[in-house]
Amino acid sequence: MGLDYRVKCCPDGLVTDRRRRIKVLDCTIRDGGICNNWHFDHPFVNKVFTALHTSNVDYMEVGYLTSEGEFDRDKVGPWRFCSPDDLYKAVEPGKIKLSAMLDCHRADESVIPDRQDSVLDVIRIATYAKDMDRAMRLLDRALEAGYETFINVMAVSTLTPEEVDAFLERLAGSGVHNVAIVDSFGSLFPYHVRYLVHKYMNALGEDIKVGVHFHNNQQQAFANSIVAIDEGVDFVDATIHGMGRGAGNCPLELLLFYLDNPRYDVRPILDLVDDFASLRDELRWGYHLPYAITGYYNIHPRMGIERMQREDRYECLEMYESLTNRLPERVRRVG
Amino acid sequence: MGLDYRVKCCPDGLVTDRRRRIKVLDCTIRDGGICNNWHFDHPFVNKVFTALHTSNVDYMEVGYLTSEGEFDRDKVGPWRFCSPDDLYKAVEPGKIKLSAMLDCHRADESVIPDRQDSVLDVIRIATYAKDMDRAMRLLDRALEAGYETFINVMAVSTLTPEEVDAFLERLAGSGVHNVAIVDSFGSLFPYHVRYLVHKYMNALGEDIKVGVHFHNNQQQAFANSIVAIDEGVDFVDATIHGMGRGAGNCPLELLLFYLDNPRYDVRPILDLVDDFASLRDELRWGYHLPYAITGYYNIHPRMGIERMQREDRYECLEMYESLTNRLPERVRRVG
Repeated sequence: MGLDYRVKCCPDGLVTDRRRRIKVLDCTIRDGGICNNWHFDHPFVNKVFTALHTSNVDYMEVGYLTSEGEFDRDKVGPWRFCSPDDLYKAVEPGKIKLSAMLDCHRADESVIPDRQDSVLDVIRIATYAKDMDRAMRLLDRALEAGYETFINVMAVSTLTPEEVDAFLERLAGSGVHNVAIVDSFGSLFPYHVRYLVHKYMNALGEDIKVGVHFHNNQQQAFANSIVAIDEGVDFVDATIHGMGRGAGNCPLELLLFYLDNPRYDVRPILDLVDDFASLRDELRWGYHLPYAITGYYNIHPRMGIERMQREDRYECLEMYESLTNRLPERVRRVG
Repeated sequence: MGLDYRVKCCPDGLVTDRRRRIKVLDCTIRDGGICNNWHFDHPFVNKVFTALHTSNVDYMEVGYLTSEGEFDRDKVGPWRFCSPDDLYKAVEPGKIKLSAMLDCHRADESVIPDRQDSVLDVIRIATYAKDMDRAMRLLDRALEAGYETFINVMAVSTLTPEEVDAFLERLAGSGVHNVAIVDSFGSLFPYHVRYLVHKYMNALGEDIKVGVHFHNNQQQAFANSIVAIDEGVDFVDATIHGMGRGAGNCPLELLLFYLDNPRYDVRPILDLVDDFASLRDELRWGYHLPYAITGYYNIHPRMGIERMQREDRYECLEMYESLTNRLPERVRRVG
């Protein structure tokens, strides 16, 4: 008999070229680290590193580069700074492309070492559209220093189409290698994703790769990634067990199952998920209604995070109504 | 200033006719009840009933009709049987369409009362494709007794296209009013859903409504519902906070947010979610890797449920490998 390994009812579409060409960027330590202030010890990060490169995941984002003084080193773990010492204790060069992110309001050019002095292969710059000048200076430094570069323009769901066009035009001529569509608030639905993928790909041209970084407030992180893959993007961000701020990210294990590319071996990731399941019980990322409400209202998840810290009840109705009452009358009901 | 109530970056698609015509069936007590053997007390079911009809949700599925002896009444709660006494203690006629499900291997025609003797408006028959003869006899009785009828042919993901065609052909001439595409194992992806929606709608014709009942093993229950809405289905099943066996169902609150139809008022549902959040902490439905693995392998979630009852670690790698080893060599790797 054998198992029904693949769903039988649809004979086509099981493996497509579009799925085969996708590259996967794991940002568990960097984005998941927002849940625990980057308090992962070195053996744990090494365990994640080993699982990721053994799985043949393409990129591992290991943390942030941050200017001194921006965070209290007594309060945040090492991966908010990614000092060379900490990196060498946890990862090795040459086994997987290693990325570090710069928040453009938390770092200046001086935090970017020359590439030959670093274990890092990739610099990824996170910016809001209003801070593009600063992001461009960081990008120029990262390119000059010899890195592959990514730019994440955050919270695209809060921008008008004209504002999106404006930053894409700057990026098109910037020399950047990869640009992610970033749904920081978990507000996007598939019809938004289709629209944005076409817009980004058309504006950025053939020499710049386009990818996605999605949050799961409305249970759309993985689903929106599938839409983006269908529409032709080049890379997808994910984290182990979906670890990430608030509702979390696209789960790496689901993405690898779906891509079904023999280049990847999902087993080392599965072997780690038990550790992450315990972490999730403690840190409580994932689907919770307070995050769904911030996603619905297209706002930063911080109000949901505060609500989740309440001892017993989240009082979601009160949260929803307080947000509704802050809206101008004309947009309260679309109908 | 005002809040960014709607995502700005996509100017179109916010409200469509397709979303407006959707009817919503809540099956929290019936399907969610699988999590706790239907041990909801009458005031709790009344609270759900009140929230649902106040929200203007179209249908409430309040449990199963079951032949005596199929379950031990000392072990299961009242909603596995839905006796008239229990129904009258928890719900009232005329405020929302009330549905009860029959498992076709757990009930015979005698459990269906004449409609004028019952608070129920709808009989929904759940069957596997192999049991269609039995399902048809139950359907005939439900039609004769005067009910609106639904049929759920379960686990469609395990059937060949020819097997799907065969049961659809029988249903097309059966007099049934509504047919759901049922992803019992949480195995379907959007490309399957598109294929199946077209197949069901084409085969069943204009007089039979088509809807969906999806599970969330691979975080696709809500996303697949969105795809089905885009493709033109008539109704969607959901449960409060996604309560349901294993990974659960499409969350009603997310569906109502998305439909954004002024006919519905999401607030009474939000007011209940705190109760369901506590229940979820206890009963642990939702995204967990053991359920993702059964979804991926397109098998019943029971192996995942057993795994989730282990004290500490789920040993997901071992679970995955044991399933891989049961497969014939030729399908182990699609690549």
